[in-house]
Amino acid sequence: MNYYELVDIMDLKLYFKEKKALVDEALGGFLPESDELSAGVVKAMRYSLFAGGKRLRPILCIAGAEAVGGDAQSVLPVACAIEMIHTYSLIHDDLPVIDNDDLRRGKPTNHKVFGEAMALLAGDGLLTKAFHLMTHPDPENRVKPGVSLKVIGLIATAAGYEGMVGGQVVDIQSEGKEGDSSIVEFIHTHKTGALIVASVSSGAILGGAEKDQLKALTSYGKDIGLAFQVADDILNVEGSRQEMGKSVGSDARQGKITYPAVFGLERSKEIQKALVDRALETLKSFEERADPLRQIARYIIKRKT
Amino acid sequence: MNYYELVDIMDLKLYFKEKKALVDEALGGFLPESDELSAGVVKAMRYSLFAGGKRLRPILCIAGAEAVGGDAQSVLPVACAIEMIHTYSLIHDDLPVIDNDDLRRGKPTNHKVFGEAMALLAGDGLLTKAFHLMTHPDPENRVKPGVSLKVIGLIATAAGYEGMVGGQVVDIQSEGKEGDSSIVEFIHTHKTGALIVASVSSGAILGGAEKDQLKALTSYGKDIGLAFQVADDILNVEGSRQEMGKSVGSDARQGKITYPAVFGLERSKEIQKALVDRALETLKSFEERADPLRQIARYIIKRKT
Repeated sequence: MNYYELVDIMDLKLYFKEKKALVDEALGGFLPESDELSAGVVKAMRYSLFAGGKRLRPILCIAGAEAVGGDAQSVLPVACAIEMIHTYSLIHDDLPVIDNDDLRRGKPTNHKVFGEAMALLAGDGLLTKAFHLMTHPDPENRVKPGVSLKVIGLIATAAGYEGMVGGQVVDIQSEGKEGDSSIVEFIHTHKTGALIVASVSSGAILGGAEKDQLKALTSYGKDIGLAFQVADDILNVEGSRQEMGKSVGSDARQGKITYPAVFGLERSKEIQKALVDRALETLKSFEERADPLRQIARYIIKRKT
Repeated sequence: MNYYELVDIMDLKLYFKEKKALVDEALGGFLPESDELSAGVVKAMRYSLFAGGKRLRPILCIAGAEAVGGDAQSVLPVACAIEMIHTYSLIHDDLPVIDNDDLRRGKPTNHKVFGEAMALLAGDGLLTKAFHLMTHPDPENRVKPGVSLKVIGLIATAAGYEGMVGGQVVDIQSEGKEGDSSIVEFIHTHKTGALIVASVSSGAILGGAEKDQLKALTSYGKDIGLAFQVADDILNVEGSRQEMGKSVGSDARQGKITYPAVFGLERSKEIQKALVDRALETLKSFEERADPLRQIARYIIKRKT
């Protein structure tokens, strides 16, 4: 690692720490504990929401806004909504009928703590709350209603059967089967990629991106979204249990279709690097304020968890 | 049944038939079959969406708009979105981890046909699609973006942990336990009532209701929403299997907390009638165009399925 890479990573750590604190505080305010008869489901929702997520998606949303001159405050409700959608998808994925995972980020999964019925409903509650949150104008009312509607539509498409849900369906259907490159690409670009793209592009829209800026940031999002998932596949093969907070090698045991399974480990790393390089190239015309996005792209290759 | 009641019911049948056809056609257009790799989930979503629902909620939304001078066309996306949310809630409720029902409206439940994982994801897909749909302006762009946002927020609150999801949670937690009137009222006003209220009031808002009109129609929605669920409880005791399309007496067998269980059958019928009477009283200041809402209120007591 050379001096500049080191500075990059230190900068990014500081940036992540600062934005994560902002997101965590806002999430707590958007979903406070309840004293209703139904308080139990709020407890379950909060359990997974505060179970140690890195907040990658909300930070991408903020960084997307900042890259075009917007600011963190006016995108916070949408950034937090995206984190709720991500969290709901993890809760439902971990359920016995899908992945049957006992651990997530080193902690017992939602259904292990609250039971399957409550976990199902906590996921439903988080997804619904996310859309409620996106109808909130920012505290200073700088986001126009028409822009909010556009963002809600974009995120719903990314999260639904044309995006995340569709990817999950194909992932399940492909388990234990021989898969080709088009299938694994469909799964990754839909199951995780779509919401990552939507994180960056909704931030950009809310930040006031011009048409060509939005196009570039969407393309950046597609590349790093896929790269992120390829990195996840690689880590599932190479990482340690402690670093991942879940079982290493679980993809292979479950017969999951992954990049290493289809392309091999070395070719997967090459694909990942090419995606990150292209993402960085796309940001060339952006000023310094897009630096967090550049650093996030570089971090994908270096991350260990 | 006297002559006027007979005319009422014939009118309502015609009104329902006409609006149901409108809703069914629109739903088909909003969720067409897919030829993507993930087409299977769209098939599962469509299975439950077209499994013979009465379309009560979308028709209430349309009737709410018409009561204040609005029209069906401009509320169709929202009306259909509400039906998708209702359908998702049925699919998830029927899953083995919650009610474990094999039949719904006389047909095999979603998970019986497509498996539990697919049913879970079909529900997720419908909920997400519903919010996508609500961002669509009506074809003639008469609904202002700010009004759409308000309606999305209202429906999300009604469907989420403060509404339907919260009611479901308390329903599950109360199963097999001694329940009092405040608990059964919480369950019914949240689990089914909230979305029925939101159906009427979102229609009213989209139709251009004045403040006092919206207040009256919301109050009407609350009364018939609760009356509808009390009627459901009564039918579960008194109805026939053929009429209900599901097992009669299943509530009692599952130890569900219901109005007949808490108040007895006769008192439940009195409560139901008082709610319908009050709903009709609330509509007194409305013109003839609120007649469908009046007839729907009367129908609740008479319905057999």
